[in-house]
Amino acid sequence: MIAVEGLQAWHQVAEGGNADALKKLLDENAVFHSPVVHTPQEGKAIVFLYLASAFQVFRDSDFRYLREIVQGDTAVLEFAVTIDDIEINGVDMIKWNDDGKIIDFKVMVRPLKAVNMLHQQMKAMLESMS
Amino acid sequence: MIAVEGLQAWHQVAEGGNADALKKLLDENAVFHSPVVHTPQEGKAIVFLYLASAFQVFRDSDFRYLREIVQGDTAVLEFAVTIDDIEINGVDMIKWNDDGKIIDFKVMVRPLKAVNMLHQQMKAMLESMS
Repeated sequence: MIAVEGLQAWHQVAEGGNADALKKLLDENAVFHSPVVHTPQEGKAIVFLYLASAFQVFRDSDFRYLREIVQGDTAVLEFAVTIDDIEINGVDMIKWNDDGKIIDFKVMVRPLKAVNMLHQQMKAMLESMS
Repeated sequence: MIAVEGLQAWHQVAEGGNADALKKLLDENAVFHSPVVHTPQEGKAIVFLYLASAFQVFRDSDFRYLREIVQGDTAVLEFAVTIDDIEINGVDMIKWNDDGKIIDFKVMVRPLKAVNMLHQQMKAMLESMS
């Protein structure tokens, strides 16, 4: 159960919102799949940029994880967060490699209104961080 | 592992696209959470309508399940399907009760283009089936 150990580290980093610690969790060849854009974002640097941006967008919000479904090297973490009165419900699908590093990170959100809202928020944050 | 048994029945029904068999899988108090709309759709009749509509939308498509993450009473089934040249990537999050009936069915899709496309397709199909 590689995911169980990886999850513990992920929760520590996500709760602390610590960007330096986040970097240590990612494999060099990690891939990020955005809820908004089809094209996978490849490589540790860009995956870090997306996740660090998300940490910023959700800082001081009511972000919380709901369900965790864990099997083998993969975990699905369902979350909920309210931004500007729009309720966002989503999943982080995280896959770890044998070295315990995150190799794949996919996010999906619902409903449609939340996807649009996240699109705007993440775009602004990515531009300010790039 | 309630979900493991429930999954077998789900796959049989989903692959056959059999609406009568689908009805037997659902609990009277089942709830459907759409990828498009926030408000949960409550009760077997409306959950059936949504899932049967989805069967119609995806009939004769290249719909296929990718990853399965299963734990306890819940399964997350990642899928991919192409409609009108738009690649839809999503998850079915299915929860079964102790009687082996589906009590909760949540769908999320990505990217944004796919949410919009599904919105249009499902709207048209729900109107034609209602």
